[in-house]
Amino acid sequence: MRTRTQQRQPARRIRRPASTLPGGTLVAGADAWVAARVTLANPACNLGENQHCEHALVDRELNKALYGYEAMLQARFDGVADTLQAVAALPRERGFVAQAQQLARSRLGCELPTSMLEQPWIAGLDMPALYAHCLFEMCRRSVAQARDEQRGWLKGMAIDDDFITGCGYHTLDVTPCADGRLQGVLPFVLRIAPTSDAVVLKAYAGALFDVELDMADWTQRELAQRLGGRRDARYLKMAVYHYSSSKPSSEGCAAHGSDELAARDAAIDRLKQLRGGIAQAFGEGLGPDLLLLGVDTDLDAIRVHLPDAKGEPTSAPTVDAARLYRETLAMPAEQARAHIAAAVDAAAGQLRSTASAGMKTLVARLIEANLSQIEFVIQHHEGRYESLGHGERFVCVGDPIDDLQMRNLYYFAHLDTLEEGAACVDVGVHIFEKLNLSRGFPMPVIVHFSYASVVPGARERAIERGERVLAAIQSRYRERIPAGMLKFALCVSDATGTERLALVRECGTVAKVAHGEGMDS
Amino acid sequence: MRTRTQQRQPARRIRRPASTLPGGTLVAGADAWVAARVTLANPACNLGENQHCEHALVDRELNKALYGYEAMLQARFDGVADTLQAVAALPRERGFVAQAQQLARSRLGCELPTSMLEQPWIAGLDMPALYAHCLFEMCRRSVAQARDEQRGWLKGMAIDDDFITGCGYHTLDVTPCADGRLQGVLPFVLRIAPTSDAVVLKAYAGALFDVELDMADWTQRELAQRLGGRRDARYLKMAVYHYSSSKPSSEGCAAHGSDELAARDAAIDRLKQLRGGIAQAFGEGLGPDLLLLGVDTDLDAIRVHLPDAKGEPTSAPTVDAARLYRETLAMPAEQARAHIAAAVDAAAGQLRSTASAGMKTLVARLIEANLSQIEFVIQHHEGRYESLGHGERFVCVGDPIDDLQMRNLYYFAHLDTLEEGAACVDVGVHIFEKLNLSRGFPMPVIVHFSYASVVPGARERAIERGERVLAAIQSRYRERIPAGMLKFALCVSDATGTERLALVRECGTVAKVAHGEGMDS
Repeated sequence: MRTRTQQRQPARRIRRPASTLPGGTLVAGADAWVAARVTLANPACNLGENQHCEHALVDRELNKALYGYEAMLQARFDGVADTLQAVAALPRERGFVAQAQQLARSRLGCELPTSMLEQPWIAGLDMPALYAHCLFEMCRRSVAQARDEQRGWLKGMAIDDDFITGCGYHTLDVTPCADGRLQGVLPFVLRIAPTSDAVVLKAYAGALFDVELDMADWTQRELAQRLGGRRDARYLKMAVYHYSSSKPSSEGCAAHGSDELAARDAAIDRLKQLRGGIAQAFGEGLGPDLLLLGVDTDLDAIRVHLPDAKGEPTSAPTVDAARLYRETLAMPAEQARAHIAAAVDAAAGQLRSTASAGMKTLVARLIEANLSQIEFVIQHHEGRYESLGHGERFVCVGDPIDDLQMRNLYYFAHLDTLEEGAACVDVGVHIFEKLNLSRGFPMPVIVHFSYASVVPGARERAIERGERVLAAIQSRYRERIPAGMLKFALCVSDATGTERLALVRECGTVAKVAHGEGMDS
Repeated sequence: MRTRTQQRQPARRIRRPASTLPGGTLVAGADAWVAARVTLANPACNLGENQHCEHALVDRELNKALYGYEAMLQARFDGVADTLQAVAALPRERGFVAQAQQLARSRLGCELPTSMLEQPWIAGLDMPALYAHCLFEMCRRSVAQARDEQRGWLKGMAIDDDFITGCGYHTLDVTPCADGRLQGVLPFVLRIAPTSDAVVLKAYAGALFDVELDMADWTQRELAQRLGGRRDARYLKMAVYHYSSSKPSSEGCAAHGSDELAARDAAIDRLKQLRGGIAQAFGEGLGPDLLLLGVDTDLDAIRVHLPDAKGEPTSAPTVDAARLYRETLAMPAEQARAHIAAAVDAAAGQLRSTASAGMKTLVARLIEANLSQIEFVIQHHEGRYESLGHGERFVCVGDPIDDLQMRNLYYFAHLDTLEEGAACVDVGVHIFEKLNLSRGFPMPVIVHFSYASVVPGARERAIERGERVLAAIQSRYRERIPAGMLKFALCVSDATGTERLALVRECGTVAKVAHGEGMDS
């Protein structure tokens, strides 16, 4: 058998597009995709040299579109460092600003803030500030263009509002880890449309969600149901822990010391607390349904822990997508689908699980959806991600960015105040010390809060909240992060209107320039 | 007419009891009460020299019991400084510890921490630490003994759960200012039983409550109603601003620069935001009913701003308790009651107010209850409080202490995190800089959070929250407050059980002592 390195070598493709368009311009998915024949040490698809990993239930069109989108985002964000490196290499003589802007326009599709390029020679260019500014710019563009750029795959998502409702749930409240490797969990790993009204995403370091805050969310959504005269649909809370099958002791969940079992048990405890809390506070049987998922972040393959006879997630995973992929690889679609449903049913039966028919349907769909992602990693990432560890480009703090979710694009800490969410941000800082600060790159932080414009004053209060969190982060890490290396963009989104990731202000990225001292003026 | 000082002089009573019981032992209300014949510049009761201020609707037994309770608490808390002054005067020779403990036992009814008395002579006694510790001890005793000590008046409260329910409300959510002078607003000023299930008390500097947090409370209580099959009762939000009729420009609300109109308008805005927010988020007509009250903190007399034709509180006060006291002073009870009801009706009619019959009944009862408090101040505080300004003894941060509410006993900032509540605590620190720190007294802070023991892990999380808030306060005021002058008690109460103001730990009040160095050992 070939080594992992040998397996990877021949297939590694260069991602940078040869086109003259700015990096990260979406080209038709099909052009960016090359059908791969792979033979990998992937437990889902560990076949003979000449076998194809092509499962009948995999949505190849969707994979193609997702890959095109992923490659485009990668190129767009990669473009920032590449372009700025080129800008830094330009001679700082008359014409520098024009040349730099020309580079930025052609490669990034935007201009750089002229004031930053016009810094006097003695000060030099503030590259960390330019870097953070451009990164924020790419985020905002990705969100602004999301509707067009996600058109190819958003409607193909296996799990959307209708499906969730059909399974008997009014809310699917998902808490993955804050870890960047989990930030593609909705559209990629589980093929859940991240913009679904029924979906609530709240990432926490170690998936350790805030029980009281979850109870408040449950209350709000249950009341809305009852005010609307609906009483049958339920609330589903799903926690997602993660581990690394290749490097279990170093590339697992940092919040749990890379200990898979600790991560799992902590999530189970938190889920039980939430359910018990609601049952006690509002009445037996009212607590949400619980589901626990584990993700192998090397492969994006999931394991599902079904609820047991008491409705609490089992410690042992009960359904394993990689195994089901292997078991059903040769089957036609309907047979494979029946096999999965039977596997879920059998597991539930063995546990005397409280899982409703709707939950079993949802679990079977999650597995089927994950088969597509397993094959996505096989086809497009040679069966196992090249980068097993962290590769986040920025940190998002506050509310989720529904329109921009991808593996390792950012670290996401859901919080209302730093006081409550400091543990999550600490983990993020720890990651960025290694990833960025050690190389002279800044730590870019998007502080993002959603508001409901229909509620009077809500936008102003969201901005106040953001300013508070921003100031608290500055204060907490003043001594830990070198001066000038913490860069912020404060943004807000309107949950009931059209404003998305609107910039309130950047902080630490716009240089002050003394009049008449600019090079080019 | 005699001057205010002349009016006060002859009637001022010495509060300290002559008995041998520890200060603050409850003696029968009647013994502590002296019927007073007063002639005062009180707008409620500005009569001829020989007229009595005795209104037929005033509950004199209740006033007697409340006065006995107030005098007892005053004596209990006054005892702390008096006793420690005597301890400080004791010669620090062999026998000092025993003498000090004897003093503490006889005057405060408790012992002092021996480790603090056994400090080596070179260190001296840490009087600020002893002071804060004893104050915390008196609080905890007052709460522990509340059931006995409040028996005389708690059942006589004019407004309790049954009455609130009878008016068509499931919740009476009250936000006064955080100012100490408002901390007796429920049992004294409005005669509302502070332990009522229907009553929620959340004080904020300037009565500027947190709209999102209030929306969450509304949601929680509305859902509980619907789960219980009740649909008719409503939620009433009541904000209470304050002003000083004697010194309007200096002793009004500090958060609004002692500007009565600014305080009123800010409260109206906040109330509108809450109602509009809920209507928009959940549906028209669902927002809470609104009521605005103003309190003259010199007299404890209230003004009510009824809702107008849109359901929003009017700027101009529409019913004035001091005026109604005067108008109805000579009437028999039933006639006076009918006069008040007619005044409320007429005011509502003139406004085309949306106030329901229930709200009008509640307002009339609030006025009637306040007549008792007006006369309480006339009889027991010579018509106008001697101390018009701040006189708080400590700060309470977090959740309210239901069992201990009295004018100027403490400053209360309702918050979940210091990050969100810093503005309130800043005002408190500003007050204590003048009141305590300038005289060498510490600023004692009780960090108090309630939890529901029926919710798994809730107590631990309440303690975690308290520790976070405590650490954040230490950090925020490190440079502003001299070292060692910020003293904490972290306490929790069980909202669904019996634990009340249970001490988790004190911080900065227990001295470390080296073995064998104690004076008395």
